[in-house]
Order: sequence, then C-alpha cells, then structure tokens
Amino acid sequence: MKKRVAVLRGDGIGKEVTDAAISVLEAIGRRFHHEFEWVYGLLGGEAIDTVGQPLPDETIRICEESDAIILGAVGGPKWDNHPSHLRPEKGLLQIRKHFELSVNLRPVQAFKSLLSVSPLKEEVAEGVDMMIVRELTGGLYFGEPSFHDNDKAVDTLVYGRDEIERVVVHAFELAKQRRNKVTSVDKANVLESSKLWRKIVEEVAARYPEVEYDHMLVDAAAMKLITYPSAFDVIVTENMFGDILSDEASVITGSLGMLPSASLRVDGFGLYEPIHGSAPDIAGKNIANPIGAILSTAMMLRSSFSMLEEANTLETAVKNVLEAGFCTSEFKNIGRQILSTTEMTEKIISEIER
Amino acid sequence: MKKRVAVLRGDGIGKEVTDAAISVLEAIGRRFHHEFEWVYGLLGGEAIDTVGQPLPDETIRICEESDAIILGAVGGPKWDNHPSHLRPEKGLLQIRKHFELSVNLRPVQAFKSLLSVSPLKEEVAEGVDMMIVRELTGGLYFGEPSFHDNDKAVDTLVYGRDEIERVVVHAFELAKQRRNKVTSVDKANVLESSKLWRKIVEEVAARYPEVEYDHMLVDAAAMKLITYPSAFDVIVTENMFGDILSDEASVITGSLGMLPSASLRVDGFGLYEPIHGSAPDIAGKNIANPIGAILSTAMMLRSSFSMLEEANTLETAVKNVLEAGFCTSEFKNIGRQILSTTEMTEKIISEIER
Ligand SMILES: [Mg+2]
Ligand SMILES: [Mg+2]
Repeated sequence: MKKRVAVLRGDGIGKEVTDAAISVLEAIGRRFHHEFEWVYGLLGGEAIDTVGQPLPDETIRICEESDAIILGAVGGPKWDNHPSHLRPEKGLLQIRKHFELSVNLRPVQAFKSLLSVSPLKEEVAEGVDMMIVRELTGGLYFGEPSFHDNDKAVDTLVYGRDEIERVVVHAFELAKQRRNKVTSVDKANVLESSKLWRKIVEEVAARYPEVEYDHMLVDAAAMKLITYPSAFDVIVTENMFGDILSDEASVITGSLGMLPSASLRVDGFGLYEPIHGSAPDIAGKNIANPIGAILSTAMMLRSSFSMLEEANTLETAVKNVLEAGFCTSEFKNIGRQILSTTEMTEKIISEIER
Repeated sequence: MKKRVAVLRGDGIGKEVTDAAISVLEAIGRRFHHEFEWVYGLLGGEAIDTVGQPLPDETIRICEESDAIILGAVGGPKWDNHPSHLRPEKGLLQIRKHFELSVNLRPVQAFKSLLSVSPLKEEVAEGVDMMIVRELTGGLYFGEPSFHDNDKAVDTLVYGRDEIERVVVHAFELAKQRRNKVTSVDKANVLESSKLWRKIVEEVAARYPEVEYDHMLVDAAAMKLITYPSAFDVIVTENMFGDILSDEASVITGSLGMLPSASLRVDGFGLYEPIHGSAPDIAGKNIANPIGAILSTAMMLRSSFSMLEEANTLETAVKNVLEAGFCTSEFKNIGRQILSTTEMTEKIISEIER
C-alpha cells in the first residue's frame, strides 16, 4: 500500500521522537512492502517564529492531502508569555477542531520489566492494559454560554445524542478487538448530561451482546484506577472526565514517555502523538524516549490504515526490546541498560527486521 | 464547656461507629471537663422505614437546636430500589443543603504503621498529610438550566464571587494552621468559571502573604496525587473537581475506614462524618473500623468548638494506638493485632485517659 502521512514534528523533543518514529515506520514499510510518503508541516512554536501563527494554512493543506497526521510535541518557555492565540498549544486545539477529531484514544499498558518505576505497588500495576476512549470535541469545554465577569462565571455542558453515540460505538467496537469489556464513566446520579449518556450507552450495548459493560461514577473510577487498575479494559467517557481520568491513568505505570495517543475523525482519519510534552530541557540531547511516538504510529497503522499485522509487529518489537532490559535515560538507577534515542530506535528496527 | 450535639447514626455500621465516637468524646469530656449532650435523630433508611422520609422534620429541628451534627452513614440494599426522593442518600443531600454546608473538608493522612496497605509504593505514600477543601453547594451539580431529553442534554456550571471567595478564604485560614501552603486546582486554560476562580484566589492570596500558593490544572493534580502526594498541604477546588480528587486521594493511603470529613457552614456550624459507607455486609458484627467516625469528631472539636487541645489529644490517641500495632479487621494479613470495634474504641479511650 502507499500512504501519505503529514509529519508535524513540532518543538523540543517533538522533532527527535518523530524522526525516530519515521525510521521505524520505514522499517515496517520495507518488511511489509508499503510505501510511506512523508510531507512535513510546521506546527506550534516553530510555526509561530516562521510564519506568525501556530497552525499555518499550509500545514492544514498538507494534512488535508494526507491519509493521517503524526505529531511530535509543541511548546517551550520561549512562547510561554505570548498572547493565547499565539501560543503553540493553540495550534493543537485548532487542528483537532479543524479535522473534527472527536474520539481520543489513550491506551495505558504496564510493561513487566518497568513495574519498579510505577508509583503503585508492583502487584497493583502489573497487568494493567486499558484503553481510555474520551469524547474530545463536546461537553463543558465547548458549550455556550461561557463567560465570566468580576462577579459571576458560567460554563455550559452540552451534549447531543450524535456526539455521545459515535464515541460510545467506537468504544464497543474497540472492546471487540480487546477483552470484550466496556466501563462507561459518568456522574448520572447528579448530571442530566450523564443521564442521557447512560441511556445511550444502554442502547448501544444492546447492539453488542458479546461485550460485557458496566457503568461507574467518575469519582469511583478515579479511585479504582489506583486500587485495581488492571480490572479495566475499555473505559469510555465524556470530554472533561476523560481529560482528568486519562491523565490520572497515565502515571500509574510510571512510564509517561512510553504512552501513545490517537485523535480520530469518524471516518478513521486521525492524528497520532505521544502524550508527553516537548521537554525543552532535554531537547537535542538524543536522550528522549521515542517509544511514545513510535507506539503512536502503531495506532495509526491499526486505526487509519487497517494494517493490523504491521501494528502488532511494531508493538511486539517495542515490547521485546523493553523486556530484554533496555530503556532510555529517564529510567536510570533501576539497573537496566540505558540507550540513547537513536540507539533505542535502532534496537526496535532490528527487532522488526529479525 | 457545654455542647449539644445532634447524633444521626443512620444505617448499617453507621450506628456502631457513631456509638464508638460518642464513647471517645465522653472520655475527652471527662478529661477536659466538658459536658456533651447527645440528641438522637433519624436519618436515611431507618428514617424512611419509621416516618416515611429520609430527612424527617424532627431531625431538622434537632439539628437546628444543636451546636454541631455527627453522622454515621446511610443506605443499604433494602432501599436501593426506592424512587429517588425516598433514597437514604437523599437525606444527606437535603441536610447539606438545608444547613448551607458549603465547605467540605477531606483530610488524608498516611499512618506509618499502615503503609503496607496503600496501593502506592510505601515511599510514595509515606508522609502524605493533605487537606482537600471542596466547595460543596455550587457549580455544575446545581446550576440551571439542567435538563435532558432523548436527543440533547445540558448542565450548567455557575459560580458567584461570594461562593468562591468563602471557600478560598477557608483554605488559606486552614493553611496557616498547617504547613502554610495552598494549591488551588482549576481548569483555567479552558473554563471561564476557572478563570474567575483563579482571579479570586489571587486576590485572597494577597491578603495572606505568609501562605505560599500555586495553581494547578485539575488533570495535572490528578497525576500528582499519585506520583507525589506528600507534596500537598491544602488543596482548594470547586465542587466537581473536589468530588473527583477527594475520592482519588482517599485511596492513596489504603485505609478508607480511617478517613473523616467535615461539611461546614460559614459560621462554623458543621456536620461531621466518616467518608466510608454503611457497609451493610459487616453491620452488627462489631468489626467495623470506628476511626473514621472518631477522627470526624476531632474535626468537630477543632472546627465547630475551637477545642484545639482536645482535638489534638484525640488525634494523638488514635495515632498512638495505630503505631502500637493495633488495627481493625480490614487490615488482616499484615501481621498486626486485630481488634473489634469496641476493643479499638477502648484502646483509644485508654490513650486519652493516660
Ligand atoms: Mg488532560
Ligand atoms: Mg465523590
């Protein structure tokens, strides 16, 4: 197959980890006879410096003409005091909105060889393998009216049936490819929006009799993510709850730099990025962990290109390298062999080429 | 001093743990020459069975004529299928609303002798000693419009300046009695209500130059509660964020049955209750942990009665008993001596009488 991919490396370590991901995808392409065309676009701080806006029109055009987008990370102290429309993060929000990326996927997986770095006891973190499915373009962060003056403030949480249904369906479809279990998180004992959410989950669930499901209140979910995280398979929830819970879940394995994400449009087009930031303090030192970016491209292979074997091969390669005792510099002092960004990338490529 | 206390034992283990707390308060009364008058009222399931409503008028009257309220826990499977206005929990919501209990305090403290039961690594949980201050009567759970039909749902997050200011002031006052540090949690990069919240925090902070403070986004706070919980002193936040974060925080020490709470009116009147539920499965067996209820009354001594030495004495007594190796039945298999509810109560009383 031939696929055209927009590459937005962004700022800081975004560049290095994206380069790493591309090298790995080239290896996948060689092994499975696919041809990837990389089309580079500016985003974030560098875009502000170069063309005066965080998401240039040229970048939008490049993305529109591509089959998927891979993104590194944006931001840095240089732009921290810019007005909000000239902040690197604004580019991220704009691109999600422009392409209607309404379903956010945040997998969290514990690697057995790295349990010692989890803040949780090893026996609690062991076996964690969950997929958080977050609604990304609706709810409290977008509803109107939304304003504040000196004495009063209002935000509005609005959801339409379609917005809820598409993300819930996505979660049930994903569960079929995993362990057939969906936990829907809401606050249906208090919120009207959660009552509609729960009703739609019931309707969708009826169409998936093979998938087990339950409802959990958001505060109970915040507890269970710590006490018994391995019990979760797919979690589906609305935007704000997903924002909080996906970040909470991201730290339970202790390896933030490993975690990928996907933001999808209903037709399967998507943007893929590691969840870590641009880490300007370690940028350019060839020590950043490229695995979050690399695993993000595995999500792209699976979700946007339906290349399942290719995605599995890539994920297995990463897993094998980690289980063999290699890791990057953030895991020093746990008795494992530390590799640079490029060395780690090469190791993963060797695994793919084996 | 003479104090009149409304006692709402509620359902299940609510009764046993409240009885335990009263015995302990009697011991405090003897040692410090205070006289407590206990006035019992019905609440929750038992109230539904007896007078047909979860919060009887007679109970409201008893509370109005008292200096503070102590509460056990409400609910049980017997009432789970009742219509929502006849659910035991409804009585709790009604009492908070009736008495305008707008400031919720949720302390979380790790006991060194029980670090092994935390889901976190011992070195992560060690030293945790935080106070979460949650706004309890405003925000998304109460704003209008709030409705849903088959296709659309709306909830509204509204805050007025006064609602925010009183809880923020409370947090800064508490910090002065603790380690002089306030972390205000919001989502000011997205929500208008959080922008007003942050503005008011800045204004209040200016009046407390001796108190260090910072702002943290709610998703970052959800992460840090797991990765570095001992860094927090006082956390102050709005209702929904507080709902989620206080429950998340409650599990980090692994000893839910130990945790007290207070819900306060601006004038200092308050309701004190353990955070655990009515646990009908273990009710009446004399095995429930009374410490959550007992520590709640220490909060009453401090917050409603300004009996600081008395509160400290009670808390020290609990701590000494725990550090001496005693605990209740939920901590079996960690090599400590298991006491019944009444034995634990007696131990704590002996410490107070020493
Ligand atoms: Mg977030
Ligand atoms: Mg809660």
